[in-house]
Amino acid sequence: MSEKNRNVVIVGAGFGGLFAAQRLARVRGMHVTLIDKNNYHTFLPLLYQVASAGLEPEAIAYPLRGIFRRRRNITTVLAECTAVDPDQRIVHTDGLSYAYDYLILAPGSKTAYYGVPGAEEHSYSLKTLEEAIRLRNHLLSCFEMASLMPGNKVPEAMLRIAVVGSGATGVEYAGALAELIRSPLARDFPELMSLNPSVMLVDGQDKPLSAFSDPLRDYTAQRLAAMGVKLRMGSAVAEVTCEGVRLKNGEFVPAHTVVWTAGIRGEDLEQSLTAVPGIHLGRGGRIQVQPTLQLAMHPEIHIVGDLSLPEFQSPPQVAPNAIQQGTHAAENILLMEKGRAPRAFAYHDKGSMVTIGRSSAVVQLGKRSFTGFLAWVVWLFVHLMYLIGFRNRIIVLVNWAWDYFFSERAVRLILPRDKSVTCGCMAQDIPGTEGPKAKTP
Amino acid sequence: MSEKNRNVVIVGAGFGGLFAAQRLARVRGMHVTLIDKNNYHTFLPLLYQVASAGLEPEAIAYPLRGIFRRRRNITTVLAECTAVDPDQRIVHTDGLSYAYDYLILAPGSKTAYYGVPGAEEHSYSLKTLEEAIRLRNHLLSCFEMASLMPGNKVPEAMLRIAVVGSGATGVEYAGALAELIRSPLARDFPELMSLNPSVMLVDGQDKPLSAFSDPLRDYTAQRLAAMGVKLRMGSAVAEVTCEGVRLKNGEFVPAHTVVWTAGIRGEDLEQSLTAVPGIHLGRGGRIQVQPTLQLAMHPEIHIVGDLSLPEFQSPPQVAPNAIQQGTHAAENILLMEKGRAPRAFAYHDKGSMVTIGRSSAVVQLGKRSFTGFLAWVVWLFVHLMYLIGFRNRIIVLVNWAWDYFFSERAVRLILPRDKSVTCGCMAQDIPGTEGPKAKTP
Repeated sequence: MSEKNRNVVIVGAGFGGLFAAQRLARVRGMHVTLIDKNNYHTFLPLLYQVASAGLEPEAIAYPLRGIFRRRRNITTVLAECTAVDPDQRIVHTDGLSYAYDYLILAPGSKTAYYGVPGAEEHSYSLKTLEEAIRLRNHLLSCFEMASLMPGNKVPEAMLRIAVVGSGATGVEYAGALAELIRSPLARDFPELMSLNPSVMLVDGQDKPLSAFSDPLRDYTAQRLAAMGVKLRMGSAVAEVTCEGVRLKNGEFVPAHTVVWTAGIRGEDLEQSLTAVPGIHLGRGGRIQVQPTLQLAMHPEIHIVGDLSLPEFQSPPQVAPNAIQQGTHAAENILLMEKGRAPRAFAYHDKGSMVTIGRSSAVVQLGKRSFTGFLAWVVWLFVHLMYLIGFRNRIIVLVNWAWDYFFSERAVRLILPRDKSVTCGCMAQDIPGTEGPKAKTP
Repeated sequence: MSEKNRNVVIVGAGFGGLFAAQRLARVRGMHVTLIDKNNYHTFLPLLYQVASAGLEPEAIAYPLRGIFRRRRNITTVLAECTAVDPDQRIVHTDGLSYAYDYLILAPGSKTAYYGVPGAEEHSYSLKTLEEAIRLRNHLLSCFEMASLMPGNKVPEAMLRIAVVGSGATGVEYAGALAELIRSPLARDFPELMSLNPSVMLVDGQDKPLSAFSDPLRDYTAQRLAAMGVKLRMGSAVAEVTCEGVRLKNGEFVPAHTVVWTAGIRGEDLEQSLTAVPGIHLGRGGRIQVQPTLQLAMHPEIHIVGDLSLPEFQSPPQVAPNAIQQGTHAAENILLMEKGRAPRAFAYHDKGSMVTIGRSSAVVQLGKRSFTGFLAWVVWLFVHLMYLIGFRNRIIVLVNWAWDYFFSERAVRLILPRDKSVTCGCMAQDIPGTEGPKAKTP
């Protein structure tokens, strides 16, 4: 079978792994094994909308076997990578093991807590569909529980949400939450509105969106404030507790729900890569690679996406970078197969955009930038185009239309109703978080 | 506050409770408290489509607060009823307690196993969204696991599904599964098709759909067979094990997945109703009530829906019956308020319909009946109309169109990926059901 003489194993079916696989699809003589712990690809840029009851999780997930059905040289494997053996050139998983000639590692990133005490235990993170569903269920449960208590017995923190981190995810989620509370929840729980449920955006920066130009940052701060988001900028978080967030300046921000969007670090591959010599973790837990995205000691191993830190560069950990790196690694493999030298990767910045809320967003394209309704429409359009699956696009569009015309978030469901789904530490603290029990006074 | 001088408490927001509440909406002098353990109403007639990867669960759930937002005299409460105190006229929940002048009990039904050994432990049931999601995840996991094994190592039972019970749910689910396997899964897992994944419909009856006329039953049996469903009729189930189903005639049907649709009984209110004198459980665990749906000893307590067994009648435990009974109980309460006598309930049979598969269904309207494409379109239309929420109708329609035109089931997602979600007893038996591990041979 000369058709299958070269095995490429790809770990991770996020943007990096997916685009690498797509580049290698139908290439003669290449067999690709795509390993992921889920049987679907997740469109992470819209994850915050799942966590704010605007989209059903199924709308931003697409089955991997559906994507690669007609690509005969691609096998998808549902498994978790447990170890890489670079000498034997084998990837071990919790299922089978896979031999490779080339390996593309694209496992993505996880939430970074920078050692802030309590942050990992007492805050929600927003990196997987499961986490987004859990956060949505928790938020809605807080309102349901509060509605069963006499108004003066509702703890101050119960209907307060602190979003830590004012990068793209923090801004988008804080904006989405402010709109969720202002309109759909205000109509669902009119009796709770006198308690001033609110969203705080907390960051050590003095303005949100540090990667953007100053006018855009000012616009963002102003729009968020107008939407009711309370900006607590200029003091970093010193500690997270069950009752809220303590700032470095000593101030305490009460919040029953703390969402941590303040940082990411390369997905934990230490354990699986221990056997690989010359692994060097750089900034943000990323693995230092050659400018070609290869490991210096093992040029058959390519690292792409959020985990990758190419020498002399520091591309942003965003979807376009993962897409470009995934495609680049695949192309380098094809070059190497032809006996040619792999090329250095260069991130091509096509621009950045962040939505703030209804009819407002910021778009930066090099030195040009714009805001407002036009920026918002561009944001919607670009996200819809990159979403995988035409059905998913229609479903998302229907939900967006509902939100736009009726100020409605259709997915205000506590589903699955499952004790494991409700909120960790908080369950012990506020009575009734496991199922909406109210304290009988 | 003379506006709130009469309290009606409704337990359960299925069809019965929902229509009772809607009938009492905006009635002056009535305050309604609607208690449910979920914050949404579930459209159960389409549950089997969630369990066969055709619909996202959110498409058939609608938030209760969304339904009753503009009904100022209706309060929705997220809680589980734990006890009824008929002397004090109080409903106790796992949260607060609620005093009533009138009580409508509409808790629905649960799966009945008729004491068949192993049935409860080793089979999946199909009564809640959580169960439907768990079943879908389990089915897809079986295929993913099998795809990691060498063909000759896949246990015979692994890709076999036994649906026990040939009533409407059993027929609809068996048909949906046959189509799921025949087209979307055959394209996802071409390598597994030589193992003949298959669906068996098991029942002691000699033909499916015992409530329908003979020609419709023959048509159904013939259509199911044509779709690849193996009919194992004429012998009831004697035992369910991890490996399959043992029939009363001694035959063993291997099936790693057993779905129990063979019966329902009134939801367990024994515990909560122990204090109520004169409670008499009739056929199918239903509570015997007066022809007016009232409890004989407590005429302020009305029992509607699947739990209700009106004297001298035995209406079918279906959605139209619950809707009619819910509305009827509400109207009786309004009559009683006016000092008039409550009326006896009479079930109005508007007809029954069951879908079998693409372009085929059976519809029975009194003595008239029809089958085929027209019946199927009528079925689609009626279900779409009764579904609550215009957005949900669009989402369902999009999914149906996808299925019809592309033979595609979009929700082939193992989500949430959660150990508690995978399959009870089966997890211990087939290695790797907790996460798709494959046995390394």
